[in-house]
Amino acid sequence: MKIANHDGRSLLVIDEHHGIDIAEASDGRFGPAPESVLQSWDEFAAWARALNVEGSHAIPLERARLGSPSPAPRQIIAVGLNYSAHAAESGFDVPDQLPPTFTKFVSSITGPDTDVRLPHNGHTDWEVELVVIIGREGHRIAEADAWDHVAGLAAGQDISERISQLQGPAPQFSLGKSFPGFAPIGPWLVTPDEFENRDDLALGCSIDGETVQEGRTRDLIFPVASLIARLSATITLLPGDVIFTGTPAGVGVGRSPQRFLQPEERLRTWVEGIGELNQHFIASDDQPGSNLS
Amino acid sequence: MKIANHDGRSLLVIDEHHGIDIAEASDGRFGPAPESVLQSWDEFAAWARALNVEGSHAIPLERARLGSPSPAPRQIIAVGLNYSAHAAESGFDVPDQLPPTFTKFVSSITGPDTDVRLPHNGHTDWEVELVVIIGREGHRIAEADAWDHVAGLAAGQDISERISQLQGPAPQFSLGKSFPGFAPIGPWLVTPDEFENRDDLALGCSIDGETVQEGRTRDLIFPVASLIARLSATITLLPGDVIFTGTPAGVGVGRSPQRFLQPEERLRTWVEGIGELNQHFIASDDQPGSNLS
Repeated sequence: MKIANHDGRSLLVIDEHHGIDIAEASDGRFGPAPESVLQSWDEFAAWARALNVEGSHAIPLERARLGSPSPAPRQIIAVGLNYSAHAAESGFDVPDQLPPTFTKFVSSITGPDTDVRLPHNGHTDWEVELVVIIGREGHRIAEADAWDHVAGLAAGQDISERISQLQGPAPQFSLGKSFPGFAPIGPWLVTPDEFENRDDLALGCSIDGETVQEGRTRDLIFPVASLIARLSATITLLPGDVIFTGTPAGVGVGRSPQRFLQPEERLRTWVEGIGELNQHFIASDDQPGSNLS
Repeated sequence: MKIANHDGRSLLVIDEHHGIDIAEASDGRFGPAPESVLQSWDEFAAWARALNVEGSHAIPLERARLGSPSPAPRQIIAVGLNYSAHAAESGFDVPDQLPPTFTKFVSSITGPDTDVRLPHNGHTDWEVELVVIIGREGHRIAEADAWDHVAGLAAGQDISERISQLQGPAPQFSLGKSFPGFAPIGPWLVTPDEFENRDDLALGCSIDGETVQEGRTRDLIFPVASLIARLSATITLLPGDVIFTGTPAGVGVGRSPQRFLQPEERLRTWVEGIGELNQHFIASDDQPGSNLS
């Protein structure tokens, strides 16, 4: 089951071009806002699985109208250094107890296909990630129960301005990763039962057709269930919360020579069984951290 | 003007024991939820300043019923190392360009007077902070305009579990500071015009009557207006957003010998012209990071 945010209304995706309006099909029991569907996820999912899709009225689904499948998460938990090869290229040890966490502030979230303002003279980098969207509240969730708390998976880009991120006496992860548009998510959420192996998905991204990252989620140091257990040991996870699970190797800051995104470049991001994101970068006079007076 | 969250309803505080219910006094134009008042802050503030307080119906205000003056912020931006003496005791250089930022996840927010579960065998520390609550959206806000974006100030405690925070290959600021109840805010928001000098407020905290931190906000490396300009250079600030501005010297991890909070200890936190918070710590079997298997 795939659930999209289509112009701020929840849609059950039938195929790439058609969906069922959930508020209409449920006579207002669920939705229309995607965040309200996520608030009553378990009841919604039971209803949706029993829905007669053939007998429901489908409407056109247009990619340009897709927003983030969780547009107003109360918590966005981003995980760093969760693939060994990426930790190595970043110059860090591999974490063994706790995944390093930060946030991407919610004003950076968008849908899947966007134009993104590129900070002027910044070092803006790409990070393909599997994104987890929470459907059931929990604190101290056991690893064995963790997938029961997942509404679905989506593709995400953890776009990162490295000057802001790496400047100063302590790492700056949250700020440099939160310029407007730096957290595209989508194209929809896909429920875990849709995957043959939800713990082994190919993911990657390309710039103007050249593949720059490729990986598999089986290489996550802390896989999805482990992340949920470890994060919820501290944080109470809430419906709609978004977890960026970390990026595999191949980011621009880890290359020799380093490479960063340029105006007019197009970044395509994909996760197996979910779909793709498309970002087009445009020049702006937004200032990365070091240029502030 | 002081605005409190009283059982989830916005109250205009008359004195410590009385307030005016804003939804009632405005015939439903504003409130009742504090977050909806913050969403239309400028219109609300103009209305409230013109309100005939003498002629309005006051109701009893009880401290035990106070919640966070911003109970559902979409973004919680916490700033580290923003007082020189605290940066020194923490072993970090003083930031000169960008304030180091992290988040406290929203599930850690509470009102001013609470019992807080203490992680078992954790190193749980105190950090008194001035908290800023945003009332007007903005991106790339000029420092000269910054105070116009502030709804009000509150007292905050950035309670921090140091084992989780400092463990692993990269600092863990956001996670170790987000156990349930680790972000008390209150007792109400106070509008900036209430202060003789909004940029020089005494703040501090005590444990069982012994003062452990004392400072003044004139010593902030990045004062409130500078923080708003620098943070909004990246992030779009939204009404209701909360900024924890950093803590002065005197935390437990910086002492010799180190000292951490113990079950049954009582932490009192104050900011001049605003009021106080009271946390009572209780034993729990919550596990800090290092104890997770």
